[in-house]
Amino acid sequence: MKIKRVLNNNTAISVNHSGLDVLLMGAGIAFGKKQGQSVDMDKVEKTFIIKDKDTLNKFTDLVIDVSLPEVMMAEKVINFAKIKLGKKFNEIIYVNLTDHMHNSIKQYKAGIVLKNPLKWDIARFYPDEYEVGQKAIKVASDELNIKFEDDEAAFIALHFVNAEIDGVETSNNLAYNVTKIVKEIEDIVKDYFHTEFDESSLNYYRFITHLKFFAQRLLAGKHYDDDEDQILLDTIKKRYQKAYDCALKIQNFVSEHYQYEISGTELLYLTVHINRLIKNL
Amino acid sequence: MKIKRVLNNNTAISVNHSGLDVLLMGAGIAFGKKQGQSVDMDKVEKTFIIKDKDTLNKFTDLVIDVSLPEVMMAEKVINFAKIKLGKKFNEIIYVNLTDHMHNSIKQYKAGIVLKNPLKWDIARFYPDEYEVGQKAIKVASDELNIKFEDDEAAFIALHFVNAEIDGVETSNNLAYNVTKIVKEIEDIVKDYFHTEFDESSLNYYRFITHLKFFAQRLLAGKHYDDDEDQILLDTIKKRYQKAYDCALKIQNFVSEHYQYEISGTELLYLTVHINRLIKNL
Repeated sequence: MKIKRVLNNNTAISVNHSGLDVLLMGAGIAFGKKQGQSVDMDKVEKTFIIKDKDTLNKFTDLVIDVSLPEVMMAEKVINFAKIKLGKKFNEIIYVNLTDHMHNSIKQYKAGIVLKNPLKWDIARFYPDEYEVGQKAIKVASDELNIKFEDDEAAFIALHFVNAEIDGVETSNNLAYNVTKIVKEIEDIVKDYFHTEFDESSLNYYRFITHLKFFAQRLLAGKHYDDDEDQILLDTIKKRYQKAYDCALKIQNFVSEHYQYEISGTELLYLTVHINRLIKNL
Repeated sequence: MKIKRVLNNNTAISVNHSGLDVLLMGAGIAFGKKQGQSVDMDKVEKTFIIKDKDTLNKFTDLVIDVSLPEVMMAEKVINFAKIKLGKKFNEIIYVNLTDHMHNSIKQYKAGIVLKNPLKWDIARFYPDEYEVGQKAIKVASDELNIKFEDDEAAFIALHFVNAEIDGVETSNNLAYNVTKIVKEIEDIVKDYFHTEFDESSLNYYRFITHLKFFAQRLLAGKHYDDDEDQILLDTIKKRYQKAYDCALKIQNFVSEHYQYEISGTELLYLTVHINRLIKNL
């Protein structure tokens, strides 16, 4: 395999392997090497194949700044997440997580520790991803002797949530904003009914799942078509009066704070989910 | 509102209302009426707005053969499903469910009762949709005095599952075939480990959810890119030996019975899910 490009501090090179660009990393792998020369395969510690060209370019640029142990640490966390969550992520996770952990380490060493005000909400709404974040803290501690706070586990969790959301042009803040909106709406419902919910119940799980998708629609500025039968809406309104009234409060809230107008259809589903949640109170 | 088209046995007409085609139904609504005349609004019992033109055309064709009470029964079931499942369906459900129930009633009256060999699997894998099917049986009994078997509840459940699967060009058999494949693979795992599973556990739920998506990929002939790190695959293979061996059996089965070749990535996720399921045995 011929070297296409020597990347950084002797640890990374880019090669072309059967039409695919591959990133090879290893201590000293690029030492004294030039484009067109052969790779010393004994020195390869890590191979990255990233299919999306744009993502590979971003990752390549990143590797110029980030040390091999940090790249390997991020990859270990991603592998753990695949096994823990049992699914594929958008390849962009390699860029986002590596970059994030690299910066967190830099800031931590400079004495800057960022608080995550939604830490506990992230842990509640995304428990599996939060567990991945905790694993990342452990790996950082074991391998680089960096002692992160739980806040960091929550930030890392959000990167995995973002990488799970398909197809959408995801900003890094998407999962954070979704969490914030879900919490705000949950608070409206709690306040309205003066109650806490059984967070281990299936109806609570469904309620939160519905709110996550609702928040994604809101942030994307997408609306459900307002095509529901007026008779069905009227029936629901009468039958689930209190839940409907609470849904109206949510409608006002998101209109005021997010300039997002909820359709009748959206109101219908909110009412149904709220009703299911409170019917055993 | 002016009549665009008189449809059938005096109960259905099509009108154009602010640029949207609307179907109006009601006993005698079309009696003696011609195109271009006004609608007698007092006779409107049911309004259908279906946005997708192709779906509306199909539904309109259907309404020519189906009686008003049957159309109203199907709509009642769909409204129940919206509330029970808390989500929107593809509009095609109006066509598929109405057509299905209409045909089932015809067959039932002719003494033909179709068995559903996957009845209990549908009830296990899609419990909420199955409950909608049971509601449909009750409505058919209360309103049309038709006494369906549980098999019918399972058929109806599948129509709702199909209407939930977005974006895919869904055949009516999709959910049936998914159920069949999920059950076949579940049986392979049960046989391999000589065990039953705790169907109420979260890991079982995740396992079945993974298999449903796996079966959809299989039926669509889609493959996960085989881009997983060989080292990760080797690690999993060693660490979860029995689960991996069982995943190989699944690989052989689907290759033989469905001519579908599982990628290494797919094998990895199957192994992870199987391992999670069996680790407490």
